[in-house]
Amino acid sequence: MNSAEMQRKILSAMGAKWAERPFVPSVTNYVTAGFVADCQLAAGCSAAMLNLPDEACEAAAMCSAFYVNLGTVVPVYEKTIPAVCEKLSELGKPWALDPVAAGLGETRTKLLLGLKKHKPSIIRGNASEIINLARLWELRDGDFSCGMVDSSNAAEDAVDSAVLLARYTGGAAAVSGSIDYVTDGIVTAASYGGSPLMGRGTGYGCALGGIAAFCLAFAEPFTAALCAVNAFNYAGKRAEKKCAGTGSFRSAFIDELFCMTAEKIAHNPFEIAECQ
Amino acid sequence: MNSAEMQRKILSAMGAKWAERPFVPSVTNYVTAGFVADCQLAAGCSAAMLNLPDEACEAAAMCSAFYVNLGTVVPVYEKTIPAVCEKLSELGKPWALDPVAAGLGETRTKLLLGLKKHKPSIIRGNASEIINLARLWELRDGDFSCGMVDSSNAAEDAVDSAVLLARYTGGAAAVSGSIDYVTDGIVTAASYGGSPLMGRGTGYGCALGGIAAFCLAFAEPFTAALCAVNAFNYAGKRAEKKCAGTGSFRSAFIDELFCMTAEKIAHNPFEIAECQ
Amino acid sequence: MNSAEMQRKILSAMGAKWAERPFVPSVTNYVTAGFVADCQLAAGCSAAMLNLPDEACEAAAMCSAFYVNLGTVVPVYEKTIPAVCEKLSELGKPWALDPVAAGLGETRTKLLLGLKKHKPSIIRGNASEIINLARLWELRDGDFSCGMVDSSNAAEDAVDSAVLLARYTGGAAAVSGSIDYVTDGIVTAASYGGSPLMGRGTGYGCALGGIAAFCLAFAEPFTAALCAVNAFNYAGKRAEKKCAGTGSFRSAFIDELFCMTAEKIAHNPFEIAECQ
Repeated sequence: MNSAEMQRKILSAMGAKWAERPFVPSVTNYVTAGFVADCQLAAGCSAAMLNLPDEACEAAAMCSAFYVNLGTVVPVYEKTIPAVCEKLSELGKPWALDPVAAGLGETRTKLLLGLKKHKPSIIRGNASEIINLARLWELRDGDFSCGMVDSSNAAEDAVDSAVLLARYTGGAAAVSGSIDYVTDGIVTAASYGGSPLMGRGTGYGCALGGIAAFCLAFAEPFTAALCAVNAFNYAGKRAEKKCAGTGSFRSAFIDELFCMTAEKIAHNPFEIAECQ
Repeated sequence: MNSAEMQRKILSAMGAKWAERPFVPSVTNYVTAGFVADCQLAAGCSAAMLNLPDEACEAAAMCSAFYVNLGTVVPVYEKTIPAVCEKLSELGKPWALDPVAAGLGETRTKLLLGLKKHKPSIIRGNASEIINLARLWELRDGDFSCGMVDSSNAAEDAVDSAVLLARYTGGAAAVSGSIDYVTDGIVTAASYGGSPLMGRGTGYGCALGGIAAFCLAFAEPFTAALCAVNAFNYAGKRAEKKCAGTGSFRSAFIDELFCMTAEKIAHNPFEIAECQ
Repeated sequence: MNSAEMQRKILSAMGAKWAERPFVPSVTNYVTAGFVADCQLAAGCSAAMLNLPDEACEAAAMCSAFYVNLGTVVPVYEKTIPAVCEKLSELGKPWALDPVAAGLGETRTKLLLGLKKHKPSIIRGNASEIINLARLWELRDGDFSCGMVDSSNAAEDAVDSAVLLARYTGGAAAVSGSIDYVTDGIVTAASYGGSPLMGRGTGYGCALGGIAAFCLAFAEPFTAALCAVNAFNYAGKRAEKKCAGTGSFRSAFIDELFCMTAEKIAHNPFEIAECQ
């Protein structure tokens, strides 16, 4: 696998599809739910954010792919998240997990432990979250540090944990940072671009997970995760040139997602190397 | 009733009022609550979003009109929504209902069934939601299909269901689509304008319901619903010309609502015909 | 204390700090959580919004300062808010309280009563909220009126209540209005600027509380509260000149926060007078 082959794979998977409207519901957090939905809708998704076990499971039965984000754990999620992930497993539906703040609090830790057996198709997090999840799932040694929303590690430090997660799930894992890494446990892609402004506004990581779930409607996990990461890096780099700060950046970023094409995704700079 | 008469009615109802600050609280969803509040405040509302039965009922006692939106059903809403709608009925206060995703899940279905007896002044939904609600309330035959946030029907297909809902409640019903329909069961208005971009961002339907509730502070249900729909069609059409995608569209749309006048509302293109 | 001394104090406290990333988590409302986080991140905070008692208390142990906002009281907050405020007291960590809609509903009233003993470092509210809280805590006479999100009092009318609150807590209190007042019970600052558009969009008060909490990471309560208020007045005044309504105002406002400096904060117009 090299970059040119990967570009052809992206173009083939996403070609006519970016403008379709697959149903990709979420169980997500209330801080960034509106922005996640806006990004998904801009890209061409039919989105719905759900809380209760009954309707989340019904939506899982109807969906093309699903998104689970642990940003704000509310009490009903102790029922909803295990129930919907069990349902997705049963049905063999692809889904993306964002283990936000992995390591923070007993409830969140218990929830994340319970998801190990359901093997999400894509895991997307910052470096701390990816490292903490790999430790929590006992894929690597080391205590996990107290979970933070903002990562205290560089993305590079988490690549080995991402590889372990991907090998365990048989899917893909993505680490966000100034360079983004995506791996299926066999090869790892480094994707370039984006903007430091994405760390100075809320929800870009959450929305990336939502777009990764959207891409799972068209492509296998590694391609889907790389498409999402490339799209965000392309959109972030372009939006930065059109803004006067993080307020106007957000509008410009959504505009770029709305105008996204398979060609832009395929040609955002990235490199591929085999995992060791 | 013809369009010219309706325009005079709109100008008379909304003339000096669009800039007043009636208190119009909501029980709504967390995905779009911020956007609903922004639209209501831009139009001149005093808004508040409430969760608990005690404070929702207190707010109902103080309000000019109320808005109930079922976007994200959370556990406490099984108590709050029946309690606040009972209170609104008792007090004879006008209120608007957005039956988001009607048909999805047992809890939502049970909640919507329980609202039948409270006869909302305005019901606002997409075609699927309006058809599903009319079936759920046994106003028309046919199984209801599984509720989706994005409609799988054209607005035209839901006009007969809207008429049945309006005849049952004695209020008005509005169906959103590329053409919007508003009916009181006697006449139906078709309102033109808007933008396809409103379907590619989250919350335009929710916010339309919130503005319909705001207009209930000044006008009877049919006029209020048509004012809200005309305002959104005017704002959407104008905002589309000023944007580069769905991000900048949202800002431009709120700007247009902030600059709305009774004249703009009255003169947005619409037609009126008697129901059969 | 005069304005020139205060300006030096602001420059000294905020000089190099505005660009640091202290961890300032919140228990806040879902309507404006995204905007609060955006403002905090734009200013340089590491933000996290929490619901459950376990993780809110863990975050309190790690934080530089904390923010508690009662905008949307959800059931779990009856446990979370007392627990986290108890923890903050124990640890001696600074925190800001926004008593949104103080006076509305039994649950909210009981929650606010329970916070009296924990003495928040900064209390930020509109005039009605500040007056109602002072009455609820029995610092002044008079029934409290039913709490509204939009104030039915002018900020001037609440200065005496703010002074009583600040004297009771030993911290600072800030009243938002067309002129903003900040007091530590000894001196009161009047801060000028801002924009009427801040009352026509949701969350500017909530976000001000979040930025006040951020400033508590660097400065004692009175300086922190005045820094936050001056920053908002500067940003609001500038953003108003660059916008076409409340939609584009919001983007421009966040851009201004992103470009904020200690100099701008220190030189926003304000006056200081001794309390009587």
